Amino acid sequence: AIIEELNGLREKDILFSSGRILGSMCTKPLPIAEKVYMNFLETNLGDPEHFLGTWEIEKRLIQIIKDLLHAPKNAGGQIVSGGTEGNLVSILAAKHLTGKTEIVVPKHAHFSFNKVANMMNLKLKVVDTSNTHTLEVGKLKNVLSDKTAAVVAVAGSTELGAIDPIQEIAELCDEEQLFLHVDAAFGGFVIPFLKDLGYDLPDFDFVVRGVSTVSLDAHKMGCSAIPLGIVVARDKEWFEEMSIDAPYVSRRRQSSLLGTRSGGPVAAAYAVISHLGREGYQKIARRCMETTYYTEQRLREIGLTTVIEPVLNVLGVRVNNLNEVVRGLLEKGWHVNPVERLSCFRMVIMPHITKQIIDEFIPDLETVCKKVGEI
Amino acid sequence: AIIEELNGLREKDILFSSGRILGSMCTKPLPIAEKVYMNFLETNLGDPEHFLGTWEIEKRLIQIIKDLLHAPKNAGGQIVSGGTEGNLVSILAAKHLTGKTEIVVPKHAHFSFNKVANMMNLKLKVVDTSNTHTLEVGKLKNVLSDKTAAVVAVAGSTELGAIDPIQEIAELCDEEQLFLHVDAAFGGFVIPFLKDLGYDLPDFDFVVRGVSTVSLDAHKMGCSAIPLGIVVARDKEWFEEMSIDAPYVSRRRQSSLLGTRSGGPVAAAYAVISHLGREGYQKIARRCMETTYYTEQRLREIGLTTVIEPVLNVLGVRVNNLNEVVRGLLEKGWHVNPVERLSCFRMVIMPHITKQIIDEFIPDLETVCKKVGEI
Repeated sequence: AIIEELNGLREKDILFSSGRILGSMCTKPLPIAEKVYMNFLETNLGDPEHFLGTWEIEKRLIQIIKDLLHAPKNAGGQIVSGGTEGNLVSILAAKHLTGKTEIVVPKHAHFSFNKVANMMNLKLKVVDTSNTHTLEVGKLKNVLSDKTAAVVAVAGSTELGAIDPIQEIAELCDEEQLFLHVDAAFGGFVIPFLKDLGYDLPDFDFVVRGVSTVSLDAHKMGCSAIPLGIVVARDKEWFEEMSIDAPYVSRRRQSSLLGTRSGGPVAAAYAVISHLGREGYQKIARRCMETTYYTEQRLREIGLTTVIEPVLNVLGVRVNNLNEVVRGLLEKGWHVNPVERLSCFRMVIMPHITKQIIDEFIPDLETVCKKVGEI
Repeated sequence: AIIEELNGLREKDILFSSGRILGSMCTKPLPIAEKVYMNFLETNLGDPEHFLGTWEIEKRLIQIIKDLLHAPKNAGGQIVSGGTEGNLVSILAAKHLTGKTEIVVPKHAHFSFNKVANMMNLKLKVVDTSNTHTLEVGKLKNVLSDKTAAVVAVAGSTELGAIDPIQEIAELCDEEQLFLHVDAAFGGFVIPFLKDLGYDLPDFDFVVRGVSTVSLDAHKMGCSAIPLGIVVARDKEWFEEMSIDAPYVSRRRQSSLLGTRSGGPVAAAYAVISHLGREGYQKIARRCMETTYYTEQRLREIGLTTVIEPVLNVLGVRVNNLNEVVRGLLEKGWHVNPVERLSCFRMVIMPHITKQIIDEFIPDLETVCKKVGEI
């Protein structure tokens, strides 16, 4: 009876596999993720001495990510629950290291930095990015001060999938001896593979001198299951310095934010990454980008434009009557995410979005846009 | 091949079902938890408008917990990843409400309060509890000041399962208009059921005037899967005040700490709680306590004592040669958790621990203790 009740409620959810979720940065995890997750569900990496095998998987996963991000040998990695915790841990490290009180973020930084600043008594200094939708180094210079604890750059912005000019930002930070965190929650599992394929995208990771920490999510373009983020620091000491005594669990010090955490998502991510390999991710990235370009073209055909040329598999579709369009689409069963600040709705062309789905979507979008006088 | 690699590593873990993990506050989730978890794995409650059914389950789960804790109608509940986040969210609420800078915790409070204080620039004032292993109201009075943002009391301490005199603490806090957080991570899913059975235990929840927030974990004595904690505040406004704008996800404001989070553990906890019902939890609590008393008796028979008479299903077994005893037990395949501060090791008589396991454990413990000259 309980199972029936829950299944009944589950039917009110939109499934990723329906193709109707066009605006989320998540997707259906690969089948191997589900299979593995369950086998490790009971494990607790907050108490790793009891779970030596799972702990070993965690170490291997962190090493894979360190390699993916060109991290130096002395780098440290930490599993986190996702982008918010990745940002939190990085900023906490910066706060500890510098003892300073301000963080500088671009206008398009994820809203989790508000939470973080709020919690840590840090002043959030926002760099306007109105013209380019990426951080302008000239403007950045104006807000830096001797109170700056960290600068944040974004590799795959939440609104548009834009990538900040990490190289230039990092040069400035290196010069000024500033901590630089790169939020690659979305971009981390797609930029490296597009670069493999010859896409002209900026470097964003530890290959860039001056980058201090990078965070990325395996439950976004990594195609694994929630909750799984990873944050990597150029120097593993930075995490150890902020660790605290953890008596009565099997490891004596804990530098992670959360205590009890399952090994399920860790093993699942390890399985997905091993299963796909670099080639598998390249295929996914290529397919997503092709569908993104296809979508952009179909949008243009019905008279709509995007805020920026797509950089990654994200489209910000300009509409003047944002709420009406979003509501109209919802009535037709399509879920896109409104971005009021830019008067656009966001589409994220995740692996569950095919050209066929776009072909079904475009006529509905056209109908809605005509109805509200958008086109 | 990947599955084989992972299964091979999984074999290096200790399974809860082996009965060899004697010191953890976690246990094997009920089978229904595993079954349900997978069906909801892809859902994201950070973006709930896409997952209306799962969101409804979350609301029902929160209501069940509010009822369990005698929360008033205007109370608010929030799903968190576990005890650490539950404590963090509560202290953050107190910080926002009061604007003050110190938190007062008993000596036996969980180490997560160190993380929290550290992160939020709060001064941690620790009340010594050397004689009673519970918070003494007399000593508490001495450390309160006009800077106190919150007082913390514990219902089921991590080291000994002790319960602070919440009623007396709450009276003082009510008088002084102080925010009182009760950390019931462990006790929350066992104290109410033992009280049903006639155990003489103190009130710890919203039935006590003066209690502001209570947090508890479904992945401990709730017998559900990681990660699932809940924090309840007497006034739901306290969470809303600390919420921040969350553009580009389907809900416009987010008061939770984490962004993306799966509905899997939420649906699993709802299923377990519905499946067990109050009677099911009573049976589990009774069995755990009976095994706890049985263990205490068997310990006494071999000449060992506990730090306090067991209050809940936790035993702090006194040993002078703590490290040697713990190491000796480990060599025989038994996992207990050392508590150096109290020169004892912790046993938690979770549902996976039976009298039969205790009967196997005691002779090994006796051998180890004799070998190191403990008895």
